[in-house]
Amino acid sequence: MTTLSGNHLIEQLQWRYAVKKFETLKISAQDWKVLEDALILSPSSYGLQPWKFIVVTNSGVKKQLRPVSWGQSQIEDCSQLVVFAARKTMDEAYVQKFINRIVDVRKIDPASIEFYKNMILGDVVKGERNKIAHEWATRQCYIAIGNLMTAAAVLGIDTCPLEGIEPPKYDEILGLKNSEYATVVACAVGYRSAEDKYASAPKVRFEKKDVIQEV
Amino acid sequence: MTTLSGNHLIEQLQWRYAVKKFETLKISAQDWKVLEDALILSPSSYGLQPWKFIVVTNSGVKKQLRPVSWGQSQIEDCSQLVVFAARKTMDEAYVQKFINRIVDVRKIDPASIEFYKNMILGDVVKGERNKIAHEWATRQCYIAIGNLMTAAAVLGIDTCPLEGIEPPKYDEILGLKNSEYATVVACAVGYRSAEDKYASAPKVRFEKKDVIQEV
Repeated sequence: MTTLSGNHLIEQLQWRYAVKKFETLKISAQDWKVLEDALILSPSSYGLQPWKFIVVTNSGVKKQLRPVSWGQSQIEDCSQLVVFAARKTMDEAYVQKFINRIVDVRKIDPASIEFYKNMILGDVVKGERNKIAHEWATRQCYIAIGNLMTAAAVLGIDTCPLEGIEPPKYDEILGLKNSEYATVVACAVGYRSAEDKYASAPKVRFEKKDVIQEV
Repeated sequence: MTTLSGNHLIEQLQWRYAVKKFETLKISAQDWKVLEDALILSPSSYGLQPWKFIVVTNSGVKKQLRPVSWGQSQIEDCSQLVVFAARKTMDEAYVQKFINRIVDVRKIDPASIEFYKNMILGDVVKGERNKIAHEWATRQCYIAIGNLMTAAAVLGIDTCPLEGIEPPKYDEILGLKNSEYATVVACAVGYRSAEDKYASAPKVRFEKKDVIQEV
């Protein structure tokens, strides 16, 4: 396998920052396909993927989203705006759809994963986690945005995570209102502008001793 | 800069899976330092880093954690168990500590980021987000676990995210009970065992059309 060296990984993570100003260059179709595939490969609890990724490139839609995103220019200037929408509920039908997919992809006997299915149902449908199903799905979306930012960084592509958005307005504009999904966070993807002075500002992190505790 | 090609990134993300059985090989000090640095570089809202990463290698502590982790063997068998603890509250003192750190690292005049400080306070201390401070911090921890899994994958190091844990018991065992932080999720890190049959099982994802919507 071809991996990145530790030094190069850290260089790319140091290079990454929340871009304030994107340039107009768009991501190539080939590179975008890689990022979409990376997004799809995001890990999630049980592999349940309780999410939709809405990829916005339409300039009219971006224009509508900007005023409900604290007016942030990245919404309009980025190449792709990825909106992360999390499932509102979790039910047996959804779990069954996932189980069917496992059976299809792995070409296995459904009986062989009956135990696994019941374990999932006992946790996320019949268990305590069902009461926080949307929040739980939201957390999974945050795994996906974490994966997207790091994947983009190791490719040399820029991002800006955006929590400063109005999810209910996003749901209206993106037609999610009557769906099973609700907007939780967004991420602008593209290339930093040479004019973005924040690109060269030293990254601010607390000291290692303040965040890492060894046991 | 040295990046990973799109094909190699996807190969590594395909290679990654939630390891069920780790081998006894430990991660070298040099590689672990890279992963710790990657963790520290995880993005968070405003860069506030509302987290602690507890790195457990002590076998006695791992033994205590396993029964409160659905008995999962990865807890004991992994090289490093990273426990993600999220801040319970968000207050002005914490934001001020972060602002002080920006001033120190960037060697700037505090007055020049007064506006930024007030924006953060208005949102996460005085605003609506304060009511969900712990949940908001939890989401940031999920960015970090997403970053950790992807960073490890591009280095060729294995992981297994663990939501099936009892956070209050973790807090007791790790001495977090009376702290500002509470356990939210964990991630075992190490190397897959050749005996782990799940390593070769095809990865299950819904079809692209089911998770990606283009606008």
